[in-house]
Amino acid sequence: MKKRLCVGIVGLGCVGSAVVKILEDNKEIIRDRAGVEIVIKKAIVRDVEKYQGYPFEISNDLESLVEDTEIDIVIELMGGVEVPYELAKKTLVKQKAFVTANKAMLAYHRYELEQIAQNTPIGFEASVCGGIPVIKALKDGLSANHILSLKGILNGTSNYILTQMFNHNRSFKDALKDAQDLGYAEMNPEFDIKGIDAAHKLLILASLAYGIDARLEEILIEGIEKIEQDDIDFAKEFGYNIKLLGVAKKHKDCIELRVHPSMIKNERMLSKVDGVMNAISIVGDKVGETLYYGAGAGGEATASAVISDIIEIAREKSSLMLGFECPQSLPLKPQESIESAYYVRLLVNDEKGVLSQISAILAQNDISLNNVLQKEISQANRAKILLSTHLTNEKTILNALKELENLSSVLDTPKMIRLITE
Amino acid sequence: MKKRLCVGIVGLGCVGSAVVKILEDNKEIIRDRAGVEIVIKKAIVRDVEKYQGYPFEISNDLESLVEDTEIDIVIELMGGVEVPYELAKKTLVKQKAFVTANKAMLAYHRYELEQIAQNTPIGFEASVCGGIPVIKALKDGLSANHILSLKGILNGTSNYILTQMFNHNRSFKDALKDAQDLGYAEMNPEFDIKGIDAAHKLLILASLAYGIDARLEEILIEGIEKIEQDDIDFAKEFGYNIKLLGVAKKHKDCIELRVHPSMIKNERMLSKVDGVMNAISIVGDKVGETLYYGAGAGGEATASAVISDIIEIAREKSSLMLGFECPQSLPLKPQESIESAYYVRLLVNDEKGVLSQISAILAQNDISLNNVLQKEISQANRAKILLSTHLTNEKTILNALKELENLSSVLDTPKMIRLITE
Repeated sequence: MKKRLCVGIVGLGCVGSAVVKILEDNKEIIRDRAGVEIVIKKAIVRDVEKYQGYPFEISNDLESLVEDTEIDIVIELMGGVEVPYELAKKTLVKQKAFVTANKAMLAYHRYELEQIAQNTPIGFEASVCGGIPVIKALKDGLSANHILSLKGILNGTSNYILTQMFNHNRSFKDALKDAQDLGYAEMNPEFDIKGIDAAHKLLILASLAYGIDARLEEILIEGIEKIEQDDIDFAKEFGYNIKLLGVAKKHKDCIELRVHPSMIKNERMLSKVDGVMNAISIVGDKVGETLYYGAGAGGEATASAVISDIIEIAREKSSLMLGFECPQSLPLKPQESIESAYYVRLLVNDEKGVLSQISAILAQNDISLNNVLQKEISQANRAKILLSTHLTNEKTILNALKELENLSSVLDTPKMIRLITE
Repeated sequence: MKKRLCVGIVGLGCVGSAVVKILEDNKEIIRDRAGVEIVIKKAIVRDVEKYQGYPFEISNDLESLVEDTEIDIVIELMGGVEVPYELAKKTLVKQKAFVTANKAMLAYHRYELEQIAQNTPIGFEASVCGGIPVIKALKDGLSANHILSLKGILNGTSNYILTQMFNHNRSFKDALKDAQDLGYAEMNPEFDIKGIDAAHKLLILASLAYGIDARLEEILIEGIEKIEQDDIDFAKEFGYNIKLLGVAKKHKDCIELRVHPSMIKNERMLSKVDGVMNAISIVGDKVGETLYYGAGAGGEATASAVISDIIEIAREKSSLMLGFECPQSLPLKPQESIESAYYVRLLVNDEKGVLSQISAILAQNDISLNNVLQKEISQANRAKILLSTHLTNEKTILNALKELENLSSVLDTPKMIRLITE
């Protein structure tokens, strides 16, 4: 069994530098979960001068990476289509594993690579929806199912724009400018807003679900650039949201693939996915609907997916069976020190000064109030006081509740529900 | 390489019989994805008389299953704690893989089993949230991350009851009765409504995330039985929903575990998970929040998870590398025959009869109207007509839009957005 696994990285941009950082930051858990140490041996960049002070070799010689017999896995994070495709072929021919975040390249060349790879692993979790492990869900989690359909919000930029238009009445033009100012959209945002990026991802997902070798040029693709306020008004009036969806659907004798803005009923989970977030709803013939939600882009989220592929490949090589994490030395937090905000329900005599008595007790216990609602009860001169607090802890709230119960104006044991504030 | 893998099943109840059915229904894809054929050799039931006509041996001799040298994987779907634990130990000692859906047993004995197993696989995807592949997400998809926290709606019965109370103003008692009538709750629903079932699942998830060996008796557990209409009113007033959550959280020097009803802000995806559905939100230090949603119970959903474990174990034994599905013979559906409902936006002269002209054209094209909204435009005697249709197809709608555009009263190219109706 190997003690370490050497990787070579092509590209040290946003995702590449995050891969380097996470492999260092989370070195221990990654080693434990991989069964071997993961070591970066070399990185390939265009301009070597710009990258100084890394604890591994920096080079601009792509060929040297493939030729290096010590390197077990090549990680392609350079972008483009034909150059990374050539790199992938050379890597796989040398029986080195290949990991990529490159959806455009896979949209065109996935089956050629699959053919060349034979039994050499190709990892591409990062190519679809960044940090969401949807490729693994399709390959592993749902493996007992025929996939009946999948529908995904696959592009964060267009989802951000649509959310701004829908929730904040921004025009398409203004929302696009917001996205560019925030760095969510490229200066040339065509791929995002015209649905091309989503279509790349849809093709990859459809290949996993259905084995269909469709081309970008063959499928129905529409962008979000023609959506106007009227459309949003109509959607709101009749209970819809508007999202750019990639849709794949199995029919008896064919597979349907399409990318376009869609009106989705408010009851559906997908309609609630806002901002730059992505989500994919998958319907299996046995499991029914499952949905996967998370950050679809961003350096660290995408790098998290890249590294999950590296770990999976390493495990296969190290024959590690992964069960429960080893018990760590961390103990269970004592119940009384658990922090939360709280909602409290009190049944009281509806008499002068009762709310002031209650708030005095809370204040003495260093608990600050957030919301209060007083409800009269028609009969019997009673009232309910419903309140929520800011953050405190179990010991403090339980103590305060006991003191409240002892008040003569409080008629019943106070009831409490915890609030989730983060 | 083995050509087939033999499994023995203990228990042919709701989940067990679904495992048998799916292994038969989806035999081809399961064989392709596993790399070997999966064959049921024997099932163990209490009352042999009740189970006739299966194409495998039915027996009530648990011991015989473990002793059978042909059986590679034992699938435990019997329930209980100590008997399945003994079975698991015997199975693992014989170096047979062990797959279980038994959360209660794992909540108590997971680390003992892990110790005995050494490198023999234990599959337990089905033990937490049925068909949602959250165990695989924690083990594989998020493997590059320290888990900062996880929050889950882990019990479908209590979520159904809370949804009935929150959305349909049912009392706790009535909602519980609904759940029992629909088969969502056991006649003895204590485990569900008191949070015990959710706590079992939380302990398993926390073991994967943190390696903590906590006991049910040590953690904060509260059920949903004390929630009243007043609490729901308060939640609605201040923008919350109420859900039974299992929460695990990493602190610097300890792990926090708790199960209780929680008020969650409406903006959070978790607050939108209704009915019997489950969902788990997991925050990783690198990937941020990801969320997993689906059916948490039910025979086929749970069996889907059991079989995904069997396939994973088979793959390890068969050294199958899984990439894209093999291209199948199914072609891409032609764009013009794709079916959808449509929303259409028209700019028209605000004159008599224009809506009737428009609806006539739609009717001639066999397109039936769903919703219509007419908007006056103050200046220039114009109006907008926004409408949605029932199901039709691309060819038909595009043809109708062309005819509409040719009307003298229609002033601009009609705009169209597709509706998601299923």
